[in-house]
Amino acid sequence: MTRRFSLLRTVVVASADDSASVLRTRLLDAGCEVLATLAPDAALSGHLARLRPALVVLDAASDARSLPALVAGAGGAARIPVVVFTDDDSEPSIEAAMAAGVSAYVVAGMQSVRLRAVLQVALARFRHEQKLHAELSDARHKLAGRKVIDRAKGILMARHKLTEDQAYQKLRTMAMSKNLKLEDLAQRLLDVEDLLG
Amino acid sequence: MTRRFSLLRTVVVASADDSASVLRTRLLDAGCEVLATLAPDAALSGHLARLRPALVVLDAASDARSLPALVAGAGGAARIPVVVFTDDDSEPSIEAAMAAGVSAYVVAGMQSVRLRAVLQVALARFRHEQKLHAELSDARHKLAGRKVIDRAKGILMARHKLTEDQAYQKLRTMAMSKNLKLEDLAQRLLDVEDLLG
Repeated sequence: MTRRFSLLRTVVVASADDSASVLRTRLLDAGCEVLATLAPDAALSGHLARLRPALVVLDAASDARSLPALVAGAGGAARIPVVVFTDDDSEPSIEAAMAAGVSAYVVAGMQSVRLRAVLQVALARFRHEQKLHAELSDARHKLAGRKVIDRAKGILMARHKLTEDQAYQKLRTMAMSKNLKLEDLAQRLLDVEDLLG
Repeated sequence: MTRRFSLLRTVVVASADDSASVLRTRLLDAGCEVLATLAPDAALSGHLARLRPALVVLDAASDARSLPALVAGAGGAARIPVVVFTDDDSEPSIEAAMAAGVSAYVVAGMQSVRLRAVLQVALARFRHEQKLHAELSDARHKLAGRKVIDRAKGILMARHKLTEDQAYQKLRTMAMSKNLKLEDLAQRLLDVEDLLG
């Protein structure tokens, strides 16, 4: 067991005390730290924001339909990988868990799995999906930024009878002199244009 | 067991005959169709392209480092969900499997898992990731298309002393009259511009 893994800070979320206790024991056996055992209620989000665990392990027992979304959502902007243990193998529950971004959905008794391996795979899966989401958000951001820059360029071209290149250079020079990112300067120009009608 | 699931067409990939046989029996018990049992070799890609299974189940035994990538790659453009059973819980192997886009990576004896649930989760995970990849590819395509359209617009603005809106309308009208997509017309305009210097 590597030292890095043995320090994994986890939070257990379970509605029943007995299953929470089993899960807690197994996590400790696997060399994890268990920061808290919480109920899946309205206070969960606040607790997770405060504790900032590296991983949430959820015992969803027989009803996994809404719980994964609750836990995944509770991570808020700082997303936390969520591992779900459940007996619920219905397709809507599985779909809901995937849509919520759950990193592992294990339909099996906790006793029957190699817990450490499940957590390792969940962490790797989480990093992999985070990377995809970051790429998607980057591409969408670039697209949105480009639209703003192009509108600003168009305004300069029309107002000052510039070619596209000249308008672009003018924007770039203005942005550098004001120490702004190109799209931020472009947005300011559009804001002012709107004001002036 | 739903009829839809019972018709799930699978292919088993394994290097050892005995483990392939165990896996095959368990898949049949779970109500799957097993189209073939294949070795992870150079011919795999061709076989998968011909058989077009809904799911590939890979027994990677103790060496999972390169096999998931081989199988995931073997699906080619028409990606196929891959489920890996292995005893290899090393971090590089897990990372390699995630990077290869494997839909499930199960570190456990096949006997100890609820196989049908593993396959169901893998299929849902696969659909979820396909959706993310499609969104990413769409955003990148739009970004690339926008760059082409904007360059074409700039050329029209400079040549014909048009405003941005006028240039855009001209492009749109030309595209419609030639029954082309806007970015395809823009690309042709750029190609010609390059030719003419």
